[in-house]
Amino acid sequence: MIHSASSGLKATAVAPSNIAFIKYWGKKDEKLRLPVNGSVSMNLSNLLTTTTVEFDSSFKSDGITIDGKKELGVGLERVVKQLDRVRNIANIKYKANIISKNNFPRGTGLSSSASGFAALTLAASKAAGLNLNEKVLSILARQGSGSACRSIPDGFVEWMDGNSSETSFSVSIFPPEHWNILDIVVITSREKKNVLTTEGQKLAKSSLFFPVRVEKIKEKINQCKKLVREKKFTEFGELIEAEALELHAIMLTSIPSLIYWLPMTVKLMHAIKQWRKDGIESYFTVNTGQNMHIIAEEKNKDLLINRLKGVKGIYRIVINKPAKGARLISEHLF
Amino acid sequence: MIHSASSGLKATAVAPSNIAFIKYWGKKDEKLRLPVNGSVSMNLSNLLTTTTVEFDSSFKSDGITIDGKKELGVGLERVVKQLDRVRNIANIKYKANIISKNNFPRGTGLSSSASGFAALTLAASKAAGLNLNEKVLSILARQGSGSACRSIPDGFVEWMDGNSSETSFSVSIFPPEHWNILDIVVITSREKKNVLTTEGQKLAKSSLFFPVRVEKIKEKINQCKKLVREKKFTEFGELIEAEALELHAIMLTSIPSLIYWLPMTVKLMHAIKQWRKDGIESYFTVNTGQNMHIIAEEKNKDLLINRLKGVKGIYRIVINKPAKGARLISEHLF
Repeated sequence: MIHSASSGLKATAVAPSNIAFIKYWGKKDEKLRLPVNGSVSMNLSNLLTTTTVEFDSSFKSDGITIDGKKELGVGLERVVKQLDRVRNIANIKYKANIISKNNFPRGTGLSSSASGFAALTLAASKAAGLNLNEKVLSILARQGSGSACRSIPDGFVEWMDGNSSETSFSVSIFPPEHWNILDIVVITSREKKNVLTTEGQKLAKSSLFFPVRVEKIKEKINQCKKLVREKKFTEFGELIEAEALELHAIMLTSIPSLIYWLPMTVKLMHAIKQWRKDGIESYFTVNTGQNMHIIAEEKNKDLLINRLKGVKGIYRIVINKPAKGARLISEHLF
Repeated sequence: MIHSASSGLKATAVAPSNIAFIKYWGKKDEKLRLPVNGSVSMNLSNLLTTTTVEFDSSFKSDGITIDGKKELGVGLERVVKQLDRVRNIANIKYKANIISKNNFPRGTGLSSSASGFAALTLAASKAAGLNLNEKVLSILARQGSGSACRSIPDGFVEWMDGNSSETSFSVSIFPPEHWNILDIVVITSREKKNVLTTEGQKLAKSSLFFPVRVEKIKEKINQCKKLVREKKFTEFGELIEAEALELHAIMLTSIPSLIYWLPMTVKLMHAIKQWRKDGIESYFTVNTGQNMHIIAEEKNKDLLINRLKGVKGIYRIVINKPAKGARLISEHLF
């Protein structure tokens, strides 16, 4: 592909964050971000990153502004590496200017790196003049941030662990319309995590219990996909709640221990269990503790919101439906 | 032994609660209360139950008053069964009147059943005219409440799991004077537990991770005893904190899940970790979540108390040294 040295190459993409029902924790290849096990997720309609990438021969260096703030250090390095992957495929050398916006707080366990790297990968590849297919985009996004590969395809998604970079990517298993369940995200803290997920992941294997988890995980993934297919909400809810607790059992037994939960995490777990006893069915899943994901059927939405209003310490609630994956949007919107 | 039908047989005993460094969770014999694995504990100087037992031919039925309140139902049944064990050995048939007092709130994870059944067993056996040795008392106490057998011997204690009732008892491994560490018990809730420990124990085996724990536990017990013997505080602290987290990882992954932690549990865990970073070394251990046990060296006592004063939501602090086990006290004190 030949570009005129003066041409501005620009594209904007939006990508959703996603919630994993079966979680990704632990890598079998640190550099390629190959996960120890596959995972199953749902894209979230209201946790979005919108990213505009512009390559230009006049730019002296890569720069990224996220939510109005220049990203520096390790964060910038990770973005530059992702741009390099795209430039390498497109065979261009231009530097890029990137403007990225999240509609939710970053670094607080809401997987802004998933939506962020999915949007970045799509926008950068398009701006670089590439028309990559979903599989290649997912593989590329994975190298930026593992779970970002799940934010590329639509709706309910499976990330196959694979045994090489080319075989570790995500596919849509059901479209967003398949099942109208909700993920009510309860944001309880705007504080950044003590231990970044990337660092925490490295400790997965230090847990004595990790091999037991890995041994059973394929069976669990198949069971999860089956329950989503059959829309068996109760069994599905029980499965994903137990999976979240298993993940945290691994974290707690890592050396050193990882305690991601906060007081509000535990408060909400007890509340959700109590509400179930009261007949309002929902199940929780939780990644890094600052936020709870309440998975519920549409019919219980208002009852749950009402209950949540009675809980002190909630900063914001975001109601998500299953969503499309990363997509390009018209630049003139920005 | 022959008793005059009209004689009042009375004795009073005091027994400490104990904190397990290596925990008891899961039974291999439900009825005999044989634990799946051994455990290591320390008796606590300031969490005490004092119990007076009186047998008399004029009593029509067994009765027990705990902290001024008549115990009924399941609680009373458990006490009657323990009295039956003692009556069986002493070959008496008299009913008993029991007055028991705790200097701390019951049923809130402070092992009132440990101190309670240890004191009851000693007082009842003495009141019945028996002079049982420590081993027999420990075996008897165990049948009333598993961890009560650890409150019989002095100081630092090991409960050997055994493979029969006669081989499952506790012994003192070091006297209280051996090591002047503290257990600062932070009471954060006076609410009773949602799931009684006895019920929770039954779920231990439902955790996929339980066999892994059991496989490694002997090694861990030996390591713990070695570190207590050598008084290596840092390594000891790291070991017991990891053990507590492992126990809760088992609980979280039980089916159904057991979440004993409360918001304050998590708050204090983060605080203790932070204080360590600040140079004030202590480690936590936790049983049923309503209370935290902060294990520290004497030298950090004041600094820790000062930090605890800055934490909202603490109801009471009890500072414990290693203590003697169950002992008889003069009746005229009561």
